[in-house]
Amino acid sequence: MSFSIRQAIKTDMSRVLELIVELAVFEKEPDAVKVTVKDLEKGGFEVPKQFVCFVAECDGIIEGIALVYNRFSTWKGSVLHLEDLVISQKQRGSGMGTALLNEVVKYGYSLGVRRVSWEVLDWNTPAIKFYEKKGADVKRDWYVVHMNEKAIENYLENI
Amino acid sequence: MSFSIRQAIKTDMSRVLELIVELAVFEKEPDAVKVTVKDLEKGGFEVPKQFVCFVAECDGIIEGIALVYNRFSTWKGSVLHLEDLVISQKQRGSGMGTALLNEVVKYGYSLGVRRVSWEVLDWNTPAIKFYEKKGADVKRDWYVVHMNEKAIENYLENI
Repeated sequence: MSFSIRQAIKTDMSRVLELIVELAVFEKEPDAVKVTVKDLEKGGFEVPKQFVCFVAECDGIIEGIALVYNRFSTWKGSVLHLEDLVISQKQRGSGMGTALLNEVVKYGYSLGVRRVSWEVLDWNTPAIKFYEKKGADVKRDWYVVHMNEKAIENYLENI
Repeated sequence: MSFSIRQAIKTDMSRVLELIVELAVFEKEPDAVKVTVKDLEKGGFEVPKQFVCFVAECDGIIEGIALVYNRFSTWKGSVLHLEDLVISQKQRGSGMGTALLNEVVKYGYSLGVRRVSWEVLDWNTPAIKFYEKKGADVKRDWYVVHMNEKAIENYLENI
């Protein structure tokens, strides 16, 4: 099955959200997605743009996405962060993930960043193996820390 | 010892870099800092601004910094990321870390973000305990992945 890669346009965002939710279900957090199509349309297409999204299309249907944005590392300066790389269930193993990752790394290189970063779940062994095969460094000694809405409110009440 | 918190100005960046390097030494990566004062001046004070920096000052000397920027979570939308929170060796235990974290959480709340995030080393138990006491969720099941400059070049050569 052949597919093509392009940058997303605003009207792609409802399908992009479907794939984001598909990944959240796979990651065992089906209720975690609070983002709306409107948030995605604003974030990706209104100034200041908060991300760039690449899509992989097969027979006119988007079956994969890679969503990236810049971060500022105090060690490396400007870096590119891959927030989500999602391939629909039926397209896994088709080479779409590799094609999207290629696009992301090429894009990072074109921006002159000193690093492309992302996060992966510790039990997602196929993804970890894939990333390590591609030369990425899976840093098992760093934890991700989240303070969510409720915790932010509690925190501020207790200052 | 009393201190005050304010947003950094451009001329603070050389002292900010000193504290960034101090943290890298503490984190056992003394050679990892490739960023320059010029990178920090550009990133923090030229459009598009890539971060906001808060500083804690004691007797006219900056002894602590918190550097933040926005990210776009595909689950939560716009979130605030705390890239670095550094307190100079001699000011640890003075309450400066708490004061800077307070400022960061207040800033995130003022922006209306649904999350404040950061990263922590797994062996930095005092920091982990501090963050958990403050209501943050230390996610031990997520790994951070880095593809650095050399790996990016190797990757692109092998596409």
